Amino acid sequence: MVATSVPERPTSRAPIRERHGVVTAVGLDADDTLWHNEDHFHHVEEEFAALITLHTDDVDASTALAALAETERTNVTIYGYGVKSFTISMIETAIALTGGRIPSAELSALINHGKDMLRRPTDLLPHVPGIVEQLALRYRLVLITKGDPLHQNAKVAGSGLAHHFEQIEVVDEKDPATYLRVIARHGIDPQGFVMVGNSLKSDVLPVLEIGGIGIHVPYQFTWALEQAEMAQHHTDTGRFHVLEHLGQLPALLSTLE
Amino acid sequence: MVATSVPERPTSRAPIRERHGVVTAVGLDADDTLWHNEDHFHHVEEEFAALITLHTDDVDASTALAALAETERTNVTIYGYGVKSFTISMIETAIALTGGRIPSAELSALINHGKDMLRRPTDLLPHVPGIVEQLALRYRLVLITKGDPLHQNAKVAGSGLAHHFEQIEVVDEKDPATYLRVIARHGIDPQGFVMVGNSLKSDVLPVLEIGGIGIHVPYQFTWALEQAEMAQHHTDTGRFHVLEHLGQLPALLSTLE
Repeated sequence: MVATSVPERPTSRAPIRERHGVVTAVGLDADDTLWHNEDHFHHVEEEFAALITLHTDDVDASTALAALAETERTNVTIYGYGVKSFTISMIETAIALTGGRIPSAELSALINHGKDMLRRPTDLLPHVPGIVEQLALRYRLVLITKGDPLHQNAKVAGSGLAHHFEQIEVVDEKDPATYLRVIARHGIDPQGFVMVGNSLKSDVLPVLEIGGIGIHVPYQFTWALEQAEMAQHHTDTGRFHVLEHLGQLPALLSTLE
Repeated sequence: MVATSVPERPTSRAPIRERHGVVTAVGLDADDTLWHNEDHFHHVEEEFAALITLHTDDVDASTALAALAETERTNVTIYGYGVKSFTISMIETAIALTGGRIPSAELSALINHGKDMLRRPTDLLPHVPGIVEQLALRYRLVLITKGDPLHQNAKVAGSGLAHHFEQIEVVDEKDPATYLRVIARHGIDPQGFVMVGNSLKSDVLPVLEIGGIGIHVPYQFTWALEQAEMAQHHTDTGRFHVLEHLGQLPALLSTLE
């Protein structure tokens, strides 16, 4: 399933043509791949846990965070991903964990944390602007992110990178069916498709499943709902790679051609 | 600016071709045009007002609702439209109006109302299935709605009408620039474009402004943020029409050809 021979490499700025089995299209995740995101959630989760432990003696910080993750897991099915969903999940969990003893005025702090997250400027990760510009010369680039479309589009706009991408795709869920639909719409062959992102669950596993190449670039924090393990049959495909940072991506991609 | 002569009418099921000034494309709003929506908000707003008056003597129901509308007006700029935004706005307003005296446990009722709204099946308005099917034979149909994309797409899926539309557009805001962008993407001439919806502010005025035809089909309730007045220079264009219900639409459209 892997491209092993390279008839020719497209030259910089030349039109990028589809050739079977040759990597021509690169999908990039956005949150925690191109810019910081999970660290903002992590910070607010710590504030949340501190607030809970202040208003009940029965719950410690790690129990509070586990309960929040459980509420989020349930709420994602009805609210989807993003900060508004997270905000309501915090309020709901705070009321439940304190048996309603937390004063409602304290919940305003949680709402304000959410608003601060939505207002934060896009904070690019190291290497990102130069690497994205460099990749755009050689590959068809598609940004594929899940989450609240309004917020995701605002972050894309704030990144200054939008013009490098052939398409910005904000999807509800990153599963194999979604990836197949997105790349089919752009006439991209799964075997010529590489997805790069920080989440094994969302960026790597579903892309391996459709026959593409998955490149994992871990971020310092991983959200509970994105935790995943790689099985032997995944790593054995030869289509799975791990990088320390995005700056290493062009060199890896050139070995895949 | 109005099409006055009709060289020929497209026959049913024939390919629909663009002809300058002739109506070939119909945009349909979704919430309160194709299916009930505002009545669910109206019902929950009444529950909200009852909850507030129960927990403070200083605020009557209409003051509570006016305060909620003000919170929503501010929050729409950061949260966008939809039920999650509405849920957080209710919580925020309840805390503010009661000076934090409302017990946090009572706020759970507001969260649950929001979840009920998100779970409701799509409840089509009278005439809708037959009329949409009929229109699709003669016109290019585009569904243009604003709101939370996840929820809007779920309602579209639940309507059973999606296959009649050339495109489903969930936009952040319905302003002239958005309409121009959407119809340009589909190669639709503004003068051959009719928009049909329940909101003067979102469905009629911006479409008149870009040179299209606006058809207002009022719903029994109008959200405070959708209130608008028609000025003389709008009604004088000859491109503004009002219908009592969607069943009257095909007859009106045939007079515009």
